[in-house]
Amino acid sequence: MSDASFLHPYRLLPTESAARDIAWELYESISELPIVSPHGHTDPAWFAKNEPFSDPSSLFLAPDHYVLRLLNSQGISYDRLGVPRKDGGRVADGRSAWRLLCENWHLFAGTPSRLWVEHSLNLYFGLDEPLSADNADAVYDTIDSKLKEPELLPRAVLDSANVEAIATTEFALDPLEHHKALKNDGLIGRVITTYRPDDVTDPEAVDFVDNIARFGEVTGEDTTSWSGLIKAHGVRRAYFRDYGATATDHGVPGAATADLAEHEKQALLDRVLKGKFAPEDAEQFRAQMMTEMAALSADDGMVMQIHAGSRRNLDPHLMAKRGANLGADIPGRTDYVGGLKALLGRYGNAENFRLILFTLDETCYARELAPIAGYWSSVLIGPPWWFHDSPNGIRRYLDAMHETAGFYNLAGFNDDTRALLSIPARHDVWRREVARFLANMVAEMRLAKADALVLAKFLAYDSAKRAYRLQ
Amino acid sequence: MSDASFLHPYRLLPTESAARDIAWELYESISELPIVSPHGHTDPAWFAKNEPFSDPSSLFLAPDHYVLRLLNSQGISYDRLGVPRKDGGRVADGRSAWRLLCENWHLFAGTPSRLWVEHSLNLYFGLDEPLSADNADAVYDTIDSKLKEPELLPRAVLDSANVEAIATTEFALDPLEHHKALKNDGLIGRVITTYRPDDVTDPEAVDFVDNIARFGEVTGEDTTSWSGLIKAHGVRRAYFRDYGATATDHGVPGAATADLAEHEKQALLDRVLKGKFAPEDAEQFRAQMMTEMAALSADDGMVMQIHAGSRRNLDPHLMAKRGANLGADIPGRTDYVGGLKALLGRYGNAENFRLILFTLDETCYARELAPIAGYWSSVLIGPPWWFHDSPNGIRRYLDAMHETAGFYNLAGFNDDTRALLSIPARHDVWRREVARFLANMVAEMRLAKADALVLAKFLAYDSAKRAYRLQ
Amino acid sequence: MSDASFLHPYRLLPTESAARDIAWELYESISELPIVSPHGHTDPAWFAKNEPFSDPSSLFLAPDHYVLRLLNSQGISYDRLGVPRKDGGRVADGRSAWRLLCENWHLFAGTPSRLWVEHSLNLYFGLDEPLSADNADAVYDTIDSKLKEPELLPRAVLDSANVEAIATTEFALDPLEHHKALKNDGLIGRVITTYRPDDVTDPEAVDFVDNIARFGEVTGEDTTSWSGLIKAHGVRRAYFRDYGATATDHGVPGAATADLAEHEKQALLDRVLKGKFAPEDAEQFRAQMMTEMAALSADDGMVMQIHAGSRRNLDPHLMAKRGANLGADIPGRTDYVGGLKALLGRYGNAENFRLILFTLDETCYARELAPIAGYWSSVLIGPPWWFHDSPNGIRRYLDAMHETAGFYNLAGFNDDTRALLSIPARHDVWRREVARFLANMVAEMRLAKADALVLAKFLAYDSAKRAYRLQ
Repeated sequence: MSDASFLHPYRLLPTESAARDIAWELYESISELPIVSPHGHTDPAWFAKNEPFSDPSSLFLAPDHYVLRLLNSQGISYDRLGVPRKDGGRVADGRSAWRLLCENWHLFAGTPSRLWVEHSLNLYFGLDEPLSADNADAVYDTIDSKLKEPELLPRAVLDSANVEAIATTEFALDPLEHHKALKNDGLIGRVITTYRPDDVTDPEAVDFVDNIARFGEVTGEDTTSWSGLIKAHGVRRAYFRDYGATATDHGVPGAATADLAEHEKQALLDRVLKGKFAPEDAEQFRAQMMTEMAALSADDGMVMQIHAGSRRNLDPHLMAKRGANLGADIPGRTDYVGGLKALLGRYGNAENFRLILFTLDETCYARELAPIAGYWSSVLIGPPWWFHDSPNGIRRYLDAMHETAGFYNLAGFNDDTRALLSIPARHDVWRREVARFLANMVAEMRLAKADALVLAKFLAYDSAKRAYRLQ
Repeated sequence: MSDASFLHPYRLLPTESAARDIAWELYESISELPIVSPHGHTDPAWFAKNEPFSDPSSLFLAPDHYVLRLLNSQGISYDRLGVPRKDGGRVADGRSAWRLLCENWHLFAGTPSRLWVEHSLNLYFGLDEPLSADNADAVYDTIDSKLKEPELLPRAVLDSANVEAIATTEFALDPLEHHKALKNDGLIGRVITTYRPDDVTDPEAVDFVDNIARFGEVTGEDTTSWSGLIKAHGVRRAYFRDYGATATDHGVPGAATADLAEHEKQALLDRVLKGKFAPEDAEQFRAQMMTEMAALSADDGMVMQIHAGSRRNLDPHLMAKRGANLGADIPGRTDYVGGLKALLGRYGNAENFRLILFTLDETCYARELAPIAGYWSSVLIGPPWWFHDSPNGIRRYLDAMHETAGFYNLAGFNDDTRALLSIPARHDVWRREVARFLANMVAEMRLAKADALVLAKFLAYDSAKRAYRLQ
Repeated sequence: MSDASFLHPYRLLPTESAARDIAWELYESISELPIVSPHGHTDPAWFAKNEPFSDPSSLFLAPDHYVLRLLNSQGISYDRLGVPRKDGGRVADGRSAWRLLCENWHLFAGTPSRLWVEHSLNLYFGLDEPLSADNADAVYDTIDSKLKEPELLPRAVLDSANVEAIATTEFALDPLEHHKALKNDGLIGRVITTYRPDDVTDPEAVDFVDNIARFGEVTGEDTTSWSGLIKAHGVRRAYFRDYGATATDHGVPGAATADLAEHEKQALLDRVLKGKFAPEDAEQFRAQMMTEMAALSADDGMVMQIHAGSRRNLDPHLMAKRGANLGADIPGRTDYVGGLKALLGRYGNAENFRLILFTLDETCYARELAPIAGYWSSVLIGPPWWFHDSPNGIRRYLDAMHETAGFYNLAGFNDDTRALLSIPARHDVWRREVARFLANMVAEMRLAKADALVLAKFLAYDSAKRAYRLQ
């Protein structure tokens, strides 16, 4: 069944005609702008090797925790969805899993996943109706055969999607092998890495003590002393910059930062390296590390990102059986005002410092983040993140943010995705919602249309380049 | 004064005409569906005895804490509103209280109480204008005389309102006398009970220690041992199921759950049965009991409801003079992610388990509840509760919930009322708001109208039956 | 460049034409009502001396922390904006600072500051286009010359703005010199003071111990004893009432209140007067003082205001270099239910007591404040405050508040400003948003237009007079 609303050109725009006409004009002015994707989780191996993707399910289903989790919530197990098990136990094959997805496509009504997947399948595979039990096999076959064509090789996808720059994210100990290959091909700049040192800043990370030792080896610094540890970061940050990194990223449960005395820092490091420490020690170590990272950023100019607020791996059975990042992470309340006090009190207005804040706690938008970004010269606010980069999520974000932060303290859009083919779809939702929001302001006579056109381009394109210091 | 907007057919629907036409079509498709009322507080004696209600004030005013509290907030005392005192002191008679309500009807502008009362009075008593000082006596007399007519007997009200099933709520020690009578009349199934064992799960409940002893007598189990106590619940749950119960319900201040070792459980029980315990003991007892109830539900299939977040009896004078449930309960912040960690970590994906979560803290909708329901197979989200089952409350709920949870993780509507005659009005508000919300999605080209028609019926009717396992 | 949307008559009103027509009718009915400004921070010296304002920058830029902070957030330093330094170091002159403001006017797109400043400059100086680099000098000269004209003297501004009453805010130890002069001129009543005793109720206030000693001298009471301290407040409150005060105001980090035993109070006072005390002591002192102020208000009828939730002076460098109230105060989470329990449990329904609550934490609107105001007879809710008295802020406030509190538990509008010339602009935004909100309710058939007209006048005018007991 094909229906008129399937990817309608006016989707997400205002329904009132005067506002919609303005929104359409704004949207048209930005819909074809190049894509700047300064934060995300695509695999650098794709771009380095430029090999075809394997099959529909491993491309669209297995790595998409949004889709997996919603199907699980309706009683469709990860085994039946073909999600690999650590014990090598049997799980469904790709085609069976794909059928299950299609048969249950109605469950995604109203979700951003539906928008993203339908848009992607339309753009790359010509889908012109919703997935269903009826078309499951045909769509699977279409995707499967097209995946081998040159236009669907990873680099071709970057071209056709008009991706000007895309950042991947690597841990501090990552050797950046794929980025080396990319450098040889002259692609660094278009594809860049990001320094995400959670493996050596979080005492609760897997193998933390070993990681710190390896960090010392890799950088030639003595990482058992606090000053050596910080120097090691300096060395490694420079290494990442060689592969295009303009930013660091930090995934933390809360927004805590600290400003300890020197002797306290060394004592803390000693405790965590012994491997026996209290949860409070881990929290304080992460907190102090945030402040150290700010100091390094104020010095070397790398943009610091904090992604705070996810309570990770809340399903112990899932973690034991299949591992992390499969849908059992849930947001919690986050305190940015108290948490960032130490860091901002020191570096908040430092000249060369830039800090981009992300949250999973929407209550902080108007109460904390907009006022923080609206005062400190270093701070920009990242786009709505994870569960919130959806149409209504973007509406709530723009509503709560713009009056106190102003539009110019926003960092533009991040797609933050592992799903390469969904990148155009995700940026399109942002651009439509930006057009919608600004058009409503114009229709309410709060904003001149000329200013709205400038702001639309800013939010769709310029702001991300500026925020991440991309040239 | 009669005015055009009084219960206008288009009330609550979108004002933009294209969206309104769609909303109207959706609304018409669901407005006459049978009512499923799977959680509420009507009195089973009404249905068992089927006697006439006594008088307008004791029907519409005295039991309605929404109305009482708002009048009190404007300085109209509970004495003047005829709310009984424990000391038997004189309070206003029903007619005087009714007049006060009518004279002050303007205070309810914009409140859901006004919608519910006007709709109910129109439906059952033909009211066609707002209450006022002018019509107070006439309306009182009309209601008073009609209450004796057969069409206003409780069972007739169930018929005319097209109530397919309605659940009452009883404590664990309730003998279910009225449900026995209903069983004799073949009405169990249409009227069902719900197992709400707060009287024996909350150490801070009135007469808790005595209750535990009686619980042992009633069930024939040794409720001074932890395993005996759990067995007693099993026995009593089966008894409630004999009277139609498909669900349990738990009113708790927070969402805490625990997973204690066996010996800790017994030690905790010993402490609370001595009657001398710390507030933390009470909290831990309730928390562990939630996990035990989940275990029993995973076994016997009864749907578990958690109503969390009310800070009760905050006015000590009101409590002393008149008792509980009269308006001095205020919501507080609630932590579902941390609170439910123990319970969900054990039973969150258990095959036969179903958990319906309610909140008074709207900040949890998008941040915690939608992600929780969108992962765990057991969890559904209850409708907006208490202060939030209002037009704007429903809008905020649907806005915040649907993108991450999907519509199919919602449990439909509960009227949750003590006011029998308001049930059609409350469901009507929900149905109008559902039609409004879906119509706006259709008008924004985010949803096909055919899908919206299915979802409207699901949210108005199917979802409640499915969620509560009603046949 | 002049553009059609600049201060368009329909600005902020609904875009859908039926709703807009209703909104326009409502707005027209209230746009010319006198202004009641019952809480704010204008300088009483202006009205007492009635001298011309000095120059554009010191009027529009230097005292406006909203404008300063946003410019700082984009890297424009306070030195360049001409904000005085404590060390007397050189800062930019007024004209240079003004140019910077105008050149960067695009940064304010979408902010309430832009609305307020443009409206004020239009009203008093005929500006008919946005500020820009091009018109910076001309606008500066226009303002500068007009400031000396009689129609821009402070009292003339009160007249032309149709200000019926305006409250200033003074600390307990303020001698009220200017109010004495106003009294001689027969202006008390139109200009009134407000009793804000933070200087003697907050142990963490600058010079607190000295203040308590001076408080004793000024009032003739022994402020080293608890009962003497309370008596001193009684004396001082009466003094403030002589200069028109009908209200007290309390700026506190949280909403904590306490109900200590007599001996605990004295011990607490002894500790804080020694100047060596724990942060918890300071918190408890403030908390107990709130309850004492309530007791005094229940006795003398002064309306008590609590402004809770600002985390102050978070930039230590700014504080050291230039002082307080310059933009580095950020809101934090606030707990009204737990915090106010002691105070409301005692005085919440006291006959003569009135308490107006303000918040910077919007999550409390629907969850805590509306239910609190909707029960306790003493409580009204103040308008959206500080970062939230903006168009979208007002929309969120009315949305979240009206269903549970009812419109009649709202205290109307406060402009809360230091900027005299912005007062009409700020009230105008409130009136437009009230008209918009009520018009949408009328268009949705939830409210009769006749009722909307009454409510519009109530919210624009009557409610503030009633709430603050102004005659």
